[in-house]
Amino acid sequence: MAGAMGDIAWVGAILRFEAALATTQAHLGIVPPEAGAAISDACRPSLFDIDGIARAAVASASPVVPLVAALRELVGPGFAPFVHFGATSQDAIDTSMMLVAREGLDLLLGDATSLGRECLLLAGRYRATPMAARTLMKVALPTTFGCKAAMWLQGVMEARGRLSAFRRDRLAVQLGGPVGTLGPQDVVAGLARELSLAAPDLPWHSARGRVVELAGALVQVAGAAAKISGDAILLAQDEVGEIVFEEAGVSSAMPHKRNPARAIEARAAFAAACAQAGVLNASMAGEHERAAGAWQAEWPAVSELFGVAGGAVARTLEAVVDMRPQTDRMRSNLERFVPQPHDEHLRAAATMAGRAIDLFAKELGDE
Amino acid sequence: MAGAMGDIAWVGAILRFEAALATTQAHLGIVPPEAGAAISDACRPSLFDIDGIARAAVASASPVVPLVAALRELVGPGFAPFVHFGATSQDAIDTSMMLVAREGLDLLLGDATSLGRECLLLAGRYRATPMAARTLMKVALPTTFGCKAAMWLQGVMEARGRLSAFRRDRLAVQLGGPVGTLGPQDVVAGLARELSLAAPDLPWHSARGRVVELAGALVQVAGAAAKISGDAILLAQDEVGEIVFEEAGVSSAMPHKRNPARAIEARAAFAAACAQAGVLNASMAGEHERAAGAWQAEWPAVSELFGVAGGAVARTLEAVVDMRPQTDRMRSNLERFVPQPHDEHLRAAATMAGRAIDLFAKELGDE
Amino acid sequence: MAGAMGDIAWVGAILRFEAALATTQAHLGIVPPEAGAAISDACRPSLFDIDGIARAAVASASPVVPLVAALRELVGPGFAPFVHFGATSQDAIDTSMMLVAREGLDLLLGDATSLGRECLLLAGRYRATPMAARTLMKVALPTTFGCKAAMWLQGVMEARGRLSAFRRDRLAVQLGGPVGTLGPQDVVAGLARELSLAAPDLPWHSARGRVVELAGALVQVAGAAAKISGDAILLAQDEVGEIVFEEAGVSSAMPHKRNPARAIEARAAFAAACAQAGVLNASMAGEHERAAGAWQAEWPAVSELFGVAGGAVARTLEAVVDMRPQTDRMRSNLERFVPQPHDEHLRAAATMAGRAIDLFAKELGDE
Amino acid sequence: MAGAMGDIAWVGAILRFEAALATTQAHLGIVPPEAGAAISDACRPSLFDIDGIARAAVASASPVVPLVAALRELVGPGFAPFVHFGATSQDAIDTSMMLVAREGLDLLLGDATSLGRECLLLAGRYRATPMAARTLMKVALPTTFGCKAAMWLQGVMEARGRLSAFRRDRLAVQLGGPVGTLGPQDVVAGLARELSLAAPDLPWHSARGRVVELAGALVQVAGAAAKISGDAILLAQDEVGEIVFEEAGVSSAMPHKRNPARAIEARAAFAAACAQAGVLNASMAGEHERAAGAWQAEWPAVSELFGVAGGAVARTLEAVVDMRPQTDRMRSNLERFVPQPHDEHLRAAATMAGRAIDLFAKELGDE
Repeated sequence: MAGAMGDIAWVGAILRFEAALATTQAHLGIVPPEAGAAISDACRPSLFDIDGIARAAVASASPVVPLVAALRELVGPGFAPFVHFGATSQDAIDTSMMLVAREGLDLLLGDATSLGRECLLLAGRYRATPMAARTLMKVALPTTFGCKAAMWLQGVMEARGRLSAFRRDRLAVQLGGPVGTLGPQDVVAGLARELSLAAPDLPWHSARGRVVELAGALVQVAGAAAKISGDAILLAQDEVGEIVFEEAGVSSAMPHKRNPARAIEARAAFAAACAQAGVLNASMAGEHERAAGAWQAEWPAVSELFGVAGGAVARTLEAVVDMRPQTDRMRSNLERFVPQPHDEHLRAAATMAGRAIDLFAKELGDE
Repeated sequence: MAGAMGDIAWVGAILRFEAALATTQAHLGIVPPEAGAAISDACRPSLFDIDGIARAAVASASPVVPLVAALRELVGPGFAPFVHFGATSQDAIDTSMMLVAREGLDLLLGDATSLGRECLLLAGRYRATPMAARTLMKVALPTTFGCKAAMWLQGVMEARGRLSAFRRDRLAVQLGGPVGTLGPQDVVAGLARELSLAAPDLPWHSARGRVVELAGALVQVAGAAAKISGDAILLAQDEVGEIVFEEAGVSSAMPHKRNPARAIEARAAFAAACAQAGVLNASMAGEHERAAGAWQAEWPAVSELFGVAGGAVARTLEAVVDMRPQTDRMRSNLERFVPQPHDEHLRAAATMAGRAIDLFAKELGDE
Repeated sequence: MAGAMGDIAWVGAILRFEAALATTQAHLGIVPPEAGAAISDACRPSLFDIDGIARAAVASASPVVPLVAALRELVGPGFAPFVHFGATSQDAIDTSMMLVAREGLDLLLGDATSLGRECLLLAGRYRATPMAARTLMKVALPTTFGCKAAMWLQGVMEARGRLSAFRRDRLAVQLGGPVGTLGPQDVVAGLARELSLAAPDLPWHSARGRVVELAGALVQVAGAAAKISGDAILLAQDEVGEIVFEEAGVSSAMPHKRNPARAIEARAAFAAACAQAGVLNASMAGEHERAAGAWQAEWPAVSELFGVAGGAVARTLEAVVDMRPQTDRMRSNLERFVPQPHDEHLRAAATMAGRAIDLFAKELGDE
Repeated sequence: MAGAMGDIAWVGAILRFEAALATTQAHLGIVPPEAGAAISDACRPSLFDIDGIARAAVASASPVVPLVAALRELVGPGFAPFVHFGATSQDAIDTSMMLVAREGLDLLLGDATSLGRECLLLAGRYRATPMAARTLMKVALPTTFGCKAAMWLQGVMEARGRLSAFRRDRLAVQLGGPVGTLGPQDVVAGLARELSLAAPDLPWHSARGRVVELAGALVQVAGAAAKISGDAILLAQDEVGEIVFEEAGVSSAMPHKRNPARAIEARAAFAAACAQAGVLNASMAGEHERAAGAWQAEWPAVSELFGVAGGAVARTLEAVVDMRPQTDRMRSNLERFVPQPHDEHLRAAATMAGRAIDLFAKELGDE
């Protein structure tokens, strides 16, 4: 994920935008075919001084300004006027945000699917395994470990559904030109085709709900993961002992100690994810046709958010894979704290686990 | 909105839950018919000491405990065992949160629809009215005021769409019993019917994505409103003068001054909305079958969030209704700062305004 | 705390500002003595329709406008011109915020001192009581319960120190006049004397660091409390059993269950406190001489923040008072998970507890 | 600042901790002198595979574990047992956080001092230069540009004061050993001396107020800067024209346009700073003797927060240096919107500017 969100990835995405724009405009006869070919050919990240562009970006509050300048120099004065033709920095950045987001979503959906499958496996394997349910951090009544895993599964699947829906419906090009009015519809359509993004109904320069929706889906999947990791940490407490981590982290001071390192990192990542989602929510209220601060806060926040949401899911996936449920301990804890028989609760819990499996198995198997 | 979210509304919702539960269980023969009738009859807020219940709630971290106790006392020892039968506090609170949210959503959707219509009117009336677009807070190139209003409209409609979708798909009863395992499906179905809520696929005691989705939709509509209010404040600056507020707020020190009071309040409300959404996002990672803190943070945050999101939309609606666009000033500012002709930008802007109207008019007219 | 932060408290504070201003100006011969007396006499909350003022406040984004209008009406046309003389809404609100904050701080400092004393008692009584320390949620090495309480104490005392310092140094009147330039220094000094607030070096209309400092101190004390409550919840887990709450909360579904209700509420309150502190931090970057949204977001956020920070401390204090340390269980858990002797750790822990007592006992005894 | 907060800086700081610990322990005869020398000599970042350590850190949720392992290997089996002797990961990380923070504070204080001086210059040079004050984004009454700059100055100086106080009083070593009980006081004192940090009264493993205080000071300085940048952006609006940026940013689409790029970046950085401060506030409520997630969220948040707070101040400093006040425009705007004479306001404003200069000049000159 770090690679998918780094400076190189962003510069690569901006160059893909510029290449696709020039190619489309060449097809449509808006720019000369040779210009389209030359520009498209020059849009390779390896031809650019990416660190220099990052430094120069400070002076214009946008990496697009120095990148377009470098691209114009590269293609020479004959084709330079056709570079970035009719576009504005925001077109390039917003479209690139969608390209970068697609990479991020694919990685994240892959891990979320794997995490879902692991939860599904747990729900099936431990469907009827009795354990104590704990409410308000006190032992309450019996449940089954499969039922607990089914709840985790539900959280992951709801979040995964939002990510999928965003991936499918909301990844759209931006092409509104200098002030976000309607770009030429044929260019918008061609650009969308070139980049395999949707052509939006309208430009979205100053309607940032799309980004808020993305932020919401990302924080939700991070939260679904952190929920699992948090439960796992609680179950792995020595006094509880219902989970053991096979490859737990070691301690620098206490060689015998085994720490739930991955799950801990997932929780730390979720805290960071909440923060970045907050930046993106607040950015909705930007000024006029392009905000003076709120928009510029979006790109790093989106990159960071993918990083930490991805981290929360990846670390939780590792933790779940590494988890060794201790079913004897589950049973003995239950008997110790809830001595009376509660068969109807166990039946309900097992039924719920089964129902969750029925609901989600097909969806997880399809991909 | 304050009424829809106050203590009385919450107690009323919890009582509706308890009444519907008893009624359903009576229909199904789970509790005696007379118990169902007696309980249902007693579930009237006026019969309860709401302040006393609020005070007593502190001792159990839940208003349900004292409310159920009072209800049991009210129906007498004969029917008391059938009150809250098979349910847990969280069933009552979560279902009530959905009932309260439905009221809140209806109010909010009403205002959001009105706000959308006002933006639609502006987009139509000023479709071709030239004004300066401003990017990064500098005059850029021409747009039309209708195009600006179309962007506002887009923001409102996207948010309104999310609210509607939540209203339609995600308002579900909660009935998982003490530890959130599957409640009896016939009771769940009956309860859902009684309360006109959906019967969820699974209980959602510890899968809190539903609340995060609600928070996301609420902050988004508040942001769409604050975006409009922010732009209006900027346009109403004396030096810009492109908007005048007819009934602007007065000053305590400067009688001649006219302040954009409503729009200001909308922005303040949005800041508060972002904060509450943050509380709800963070609450996803609660412990085990019922969180010890994160869940209890949800109810007040949901109430507050509806209050401030509702405030942001209502104040923005008032501001937009009160807005007097100064088209001469728009034109003169434009000529002053962008002297050269830019007919193609004006055409694109007017086309975009028209396109937005085509996209959204039917949706707004239908309700 | 709810009373200290409610509408009545705010209106009362604004009236105290107006009375003190008129009195001071009468002393200095700026307004006629009879005007000073009449205004001061009229500044009684019971003479005002507080709900009506709250409603009217919406139209001007400030309660001061309708309140000053009502006060002018009350004193009659002869004295009306001398009401709110030379002041602006922000002078009244900011000064009132300091008056309200003083009440809030006194309540909070009282509870924080009590909480500190309880921790001090625990640190002393259990100075040498062995228990397991837990790092990364795994049993690590021995500590003593007194050492743990000493850490709690440290957190409370650091936060209490910040609150005290703010109470002592930063509660200042605001009197900058309509646009926050320097108010007359003799009036500022007199007003400060009347209200027992400091006379600031400069008006602080658009330098909002003072509010950010208050927010920081409030969130810190809430965090110190939530840390204790969180630890207490973990120690009260059935599987750990090192703390029992005497008067724990009951459950609506499981009569046998005892929930750590107060500690849970403290954690929920801390989550809300973090959110409100975020609103206040973000408000620093307001526009020009008085912000259009950021400033108006401050007052409710300050009130809310006092409410939830006060709640976090009060609930934690109740939880700590209600706490019954189970020293046998502490010892048996320790022996079970850390069988080898570790006298040097126990000695270090006991020494630390003693050192904390030495550091803080005098400070807590003095008040 | 990026360098001061990067992986290399952190690894360097951890190695300085390990070297100082070994050196101190050698002086005190706790470890053999040759061990102290060998360890100290090996603690050079260039001897370590920093990327490899960052990767390995994931498995233990701490970079200290692999770094100490590598250091032990480097010094060989004879001295390995004396590496990290008596310390825990948290001792190394928390102390390193303070070392890294000191670097960050020095950079930030340098820029904050420069920013203060620039504001002081403006306050002096334009002490009596009339301009319109704007409240609630409407022209209100006259002020002077020097008075406005004096308010900026006040904001910067208050924040700078907090940073200085933290730098002076709160940068302390951490040495509590495995579970945060009291480390040996002679070692604590020696370590503090070696690293020029304070020896704290008590270890602060689970009392995280210190970090919250740092976060509060950092967000405050970022807010003070963003306030200035925000005002500057508003004054630079074409319709206002009271500030021109000499080296403004260029646009990729509109070659004539000059954007307030630095000020924009400062505002974006402030939004990010608020988010990171939120992470650190929330981290106070960690579990037991070392939190499982909250503590691990601190280090990256501190690094990020220094980065964005530093960015907010540095970009604002550049913006202020680049600012060309347009005094004719200030006067003409004032005459246009506030035609009546207001000499007393101008006098008050100029007096305030002078007073601010008197208050802060010495402090700024001293360094």
